[in-house]
Amino acid sequence: MTAPSSGPLRVADIAALLGATIVGDPSVVVTGVAPLDRAGPGELSFLASARYLELFATTAASVVIVAPELAEVAGACGTRLVVAKPHEAVLTVIARMHPRPVPPFVGVHPTAVIATEAVVSPGACVEAFSVIGAGATIAAGAWIGPHCVIGAGSAIGPETRLIDHVTIYPGCRVGARNLLHAGVRVGSDGFGFVHRDGAHQKIPHVGGCVIGDDVEMGANCTIDRGSIDDTVIGEGTKLDNLVHIGHNVRVGKHCLMAAGCVVAGSARIEDLVSLGGQVAVGGHLTVGRGARIAAKSGVVKDVPAGETWSGFPARPHREELRRAGATARLPRIIAALERLVGGGTDT
Amino acid sequence: MTAPSSGPLRVADIAALLGATIVGDPSVVVTGVAPLDRAGPGELSFLASARYLELFATTAASVVIVAPELAEVAGACGTRLVVAKPHEAVLTVIARMHPRPVPPFVGVHPTAVIATEAVVSPGACVEAFSVIGAGATIAAGAWIGPHCVIGAGSAIGPETRLIDHVTIYPGCRVGARNLLHAGVRVGSDGFGFVHRDGAHQKIPHVGGCVIGDDVEMGANCTIDRGSIDDTVIGEGTKLDNLVHIGHNVRVGKHCLMAAGCVVAGSARIEDLVSLGGQVAVGGHLTVGRGARIAAKSGVVKDVPAGETWSGFPARPHREELRRAGATARLPRIIAALERLVGGGTDT
Amino acid sequence: MTAPSSGPLRVADIAALLGATIVGDPSVVVTGVAPLDRAGPGELSFLASARYLELFATTAASVVIVAPELAEVAGACGTRLVVAKPHEAVLTVIARMHPRPVPPFVGVHPTAVIATEAVVSPGACVEAFSVIGAGATIAAGAWIGPHCVIGAGSAIGPETRLIDHVTIYPGCRVGARNLLHAGVRVGSDGFGFVHRDGAHQKIPHVGGCVIGDDVEMGANCTIDRGSIDDTVIGEGTKLDNLVHIGHNVRVGKHCLMAAGCVVAGSARIEDLVSLGGQVAVGGHLTVGRGARIAAKSGVVKDVPAGETWSGFPARPHREELRRAGATARLPRIIAALERLVGGGTDT
Repeated sequence: MTAPSSGPLRVADIAALLGATIVGDPSVVVTGVAPLDRAGPGELSFLASARYLELFATTAASVVIVAPELAEVAGACGTRLVVAKPHEAVLTVIARMHPRPVPPFVGVHPTAVIATEAVVSPGACVEAFSVIGAGATIAAGAWIGPHCVIGAGSAIGPETRLIDHVTIYPGCRVGARNLLHAGVRVGSDGFGFVHRDGAHQKIPHVGGCVIGDDVEMGANCTIDRGSIDDTVIGEGTKLDNLVHIGHNVRVGKHCLMAAGCVVAGSARIEDLVSLGGQVAVGGHLTVGRGARIAAKSGVVKDVPAGETWSGFPARPHREELRRAGATARLPRIIAALERLVGGGTDT
Repeated sequence: MTAPSSGPLRVADIAALLGATIVGDPSVVVTGVAPLDRAGPGELSFLASARYLELFATTAASVVIVAPELAEVAGACGTRLVVAKPHEAVLTVIARMHPRPVPPFVGVHPTAVIATEAVVSPGACVEAFSVIGAGATIAAGAWIGPHCVIGAGSAIGPETRLIDHVTIYPGCRVGARNLLHAGVRVGSDGFGFVHRDGAHQKIPHVGGCVIGDDVEMGANCTIDRGSIDDTVIGEGTKLDNLVHIGHNVRVGKHCLMAAGCVVAGSARIEDLVSLGGQVAVGGHLTVGRGARIAAKSGVVKDVPAGETWSGFPARPHREELRRAGATARLPRIIAALERLVGGGTDT
Repeated sequence: MTAPSSGPLRVADIAALLGATIVGDPSVVVTGVAPLDRAGPGELSFLASARYLELFATTAASVVIVAPELAEVAGACGTRLVVAKPHEAVLTVIARMHPRPVPPFVGVHPTAVIATEAVVSPGACVEAFSVIGAGATIAAGAWIGPHCVIGAGSAIGPETRLIDHVTIYPGCRVGARNLLHAGVRVGSDGFGFVHRDGAHQKIPHVGGCVIGDDVEMGANCTIDRGSIDDTVIGEGTKLDNLVHIGHNVRVGKHCLMAAGCVVAGSARIEDLVSLGGQVAVGGHLTVGRGARIAAKSGVVKDVPAGETWSGFPARPHREELRRAGATARLPRIIAALERLVGGGTDT
C-alpha cells in the first residue's frame, strides 16, 4: 500500500459506509487494504469467491469483506464484513481511505518559467521546471506537475492534473478534471504530406486539440492536432498508455481505449465506444455509438452502432469466430480436399 | 485557428498567389482559414465537392475557394475564389498565412545547462532547462525547445527543431531542417543480449545514429543506436508518432511510416517505401525501393521493390485479398466439406 | 564509434584476452571497433563468414578477427586474430574497450530539486533538473540522469541508472543495476474503471511497482502500478522500447520482450519467457516458464511452459504453420470446392 491514506478507519464505520453486517469485533481499526496473501495485521482484505479459501485460511488480515455465502466459512480472520458484492465494496473502502491526491502547494514553484502574458490562477499549482507559454491560461485547482510544457495560448481547465513531463502544444484546450499521465503529448502535428517533386512537403497543421472534461490519458499517449479543424476528445473518455489519436479525429464521450491503440486521421469514434488493446482504426472511418472492438482488431470499414467486431480485417464478432474456427479446422481436411479437387486448379 | 499568422491577406493577393478567378469583392480581407461549418467572418474556407453544399449554404466564411463547376452554386458566401483544385489551393494559402514558426529568441536561455566544451552557434536557440553535453555541436538556426537533452559529442544540424522533451543520446548526428516532436528518443541502446549462464548479458552498443536532412519524427518515437555500425535514417523520411526503429536499421530517403510501426534490428528499408500504421518489419529483412506495406501487416520475408504487400504474414496484396476472401467464404462451405471428406482425416 | 573508450589496446593484449592466435604484427595498436567497410586505420574489425570476403578485400582496418578457416584468405588487412567464434570475440573486445559508462560526478547537481525528507546516498549521482520527492531513497552508485522525476517514497537501488526524462511514480521500488532508458514511466495508474451512471468511475490504484535487479527497459516503456497488489518485474528481465505492462502483471525472471509488446492487466509471465515484437497478451492469462511467443502474436489463452506459440489467436507454432499454410493454398482450390459443395450451403 503506497498511496497516501486519510488515516485509520474503525470496522463499525466501514460497515456503515458499506451497509455491511459485522461478524466479530466492530472496534477493530484498519489502516490499509491488501490482497489476502499479503495483508498484515491492521489491514483489510476481501474474499470474493470460494476459489481463494486457501488464502483465507492463512491470511494475517485483521478484517475481511466476504460474500453472504462465505460469512461462516473457516478462516484465519475473526472479524468479517458481510456484503453482497465484496469486490465493489473494497473499491468503496479504497476510495474512502485514499482520497484524490492534492497538490503539494498552491502557487508557482520558483524554478518554473511562466511567460509574462500567461494567466495562472492563484488557486493553481505549477511544480518545478514547468514552462508556460504566452497567453496560456491555467484554471483554479489545476495541478501542473514537474517538467510540463504548456504552449502559447493553450488552456488548462479547473482541477485538471498533468502528472509530469506532459507536453501541451500551443493552441490546445484541455477541459476540467482531466488526468494526463507522464509523457502525454497533446497537439503534435498530424502526419500529413503532399508528395511533390520527389519529396514529401509538409501540410501545416493549424487546427488545435479540444479535450473535454473528465478525460484520462495514460502514460506516453500522443494526440495530434487538427490540420485545419480540431482534433476532439469527448467528455469522460479514458485512454490507456501508448494510445495514438491522429489529426482531425473526433472521439465521442465516455469511450475506452486500451493500451497501444492507433486511431488514424479523421476517424470518428462515437460515444461509448470501447476499443481493446492494440486496435487500429483506419482513417476517415466511423465506429458507431456503443460499438465494441476486440483487442488487436484492425478496422477497415465503418462499424455500425452497438455491434461487437473483431479480427483483421474486423467483422462482426460471430462471423469472425466462424471464420477463425473454419480456418482452424482447415488443415485437418485440406489434404483430403486436394485429393478431391486436384492440385492444379488455378484461380 | 491556433497557429501564429503572418497577418491578414486581401482576396486580390490570394487570387494572385493561387492564379484564381475572383467572383465577388477583391478588397475583402482574410485573417484565417477554417472548415465551412466553423469559419467565421474574416475567415477563408473551401468547397472541394458537392457533398458539402449543405455546409456551404450556411457558412459564415467571408471567402470560399471553390472548384469551377461550383463557382455559381447557391451559398451563403458572396466572395469566391475559383481554382481547379480547391484542396491544394487551401494548403497554399495556409502555408502563406502560417509560415514556419521561428524561435522566440536567438541565444541560450539562462536556465539551460551547456557543457563548457559544447559548441552552440550564436545563431541557434536553446530554450529553458535544456542540457547540452560536452563536445556537442548545435548549428546556426537550430532550435532546441525546452527540456531537451543532447548527449556528449552529438551534432544538431542547421534549422533543425527539437520541439521539447527530446533526447539525443551521445554520439548521434541529426541533419539539417529536421523536425523532432516532443518525447522523441534518438540513440537508445539496441535490444541485444547474449544468453550466458542463465542470464541475458548486454551487448554494448557503441555505434551511433545518423539522421539525414529534412527528416520528421512524430511524438514519442524511439530510434535505437547501432551496435557497432550506425542506425541510419535517410533524407526526407517522415515518421508518425510512436514509431520504433531498431538498432542497425537503414531507412532510405523519402520513406513514410504511419503511427505505431516497429522496424526490427538490421532491417533495410529502401528509398520511397511507405508503411501503414502498426506495421512490423522483421529483423535483417529488406523492403525494396518504393514498396508499399498496408496497415497492420507483418513483414516476415524480403519485399521486392515497387510491390504492394499486406496481411500477416505479409504477401503481395492481390494474393492476400484472394486468401482473405477465400477464408471469409469458408464457413459457408466447411460443413459440407467435412461431410465430403470426413472428420477423421489426420494430417 | 561514438561511445567513450578505455583507450588503445595492443594486438598482443587483445590476443591474450581472446585466447586468439596472431597472424601478423602483435605490436599494432587498436583504438576502436568498426564494420569492415567503415573501419579506418587503427581500428579492429571482424570477418565472421566468407559472405563478407569482398569487404575484407578492401578494408582499411588495421586488425581483423577471423575464423580459423579464413585465417589465410586474401585480404587488405595484414594483421589478423584467429579465433573460433569471431562474432563473440568482437563483443569481448567491445566490452573491454567500452566499459560501463560512469556518472559525470558524484553528488547532486545544483539545479536538482530534492525534498528535504529524501535520502540520497552520498555515493549517488543526481543530474540537472531532476526532482526527488519526500521519503524517496537513492542508493549508492545510483545514477539519476537529467530531467528525472522520482516520486515520494520510491526507492532506487544501487548502481541503477535512469538515462533521462524517466518518471518513477510515488511508492515504487526499483532494484539494483537497472538500466531505464529515456522516457520510461514506472507506476502510472492502471486502466481500471467501473461503469456507473453512464460514466467510467476511476478505480483508485493504491498498489505499487516492484522492479527486480538487473532489469533493462527501453525508451518510452510504460509500467502501470497495481490496483491493490503490486505490479512486479523479475530480476534480469529486459524490455525493448515502447513496451506496456498493465496493472498487477507479474513478469518473471530473465524474460525478453521486443518492441511494442502490450501485456494486459493481471497477466502472469513466468521466468525465461520470450515475446517477439508487437505481441499482445490478454488480461489474467499465464504464459508458462520458458515459453516463446512469435512476433505480432495475440495470446488469448494460457500458454503451457516451454512451448512456442504464434499467430492470432496464438496457438502452438506448428499448428499455426499448418493453419496458415492451408489458408494460403485455399484460393487455389476454393473455386473447385464451391462447385463440389454448391454455394448455398448455410452454416
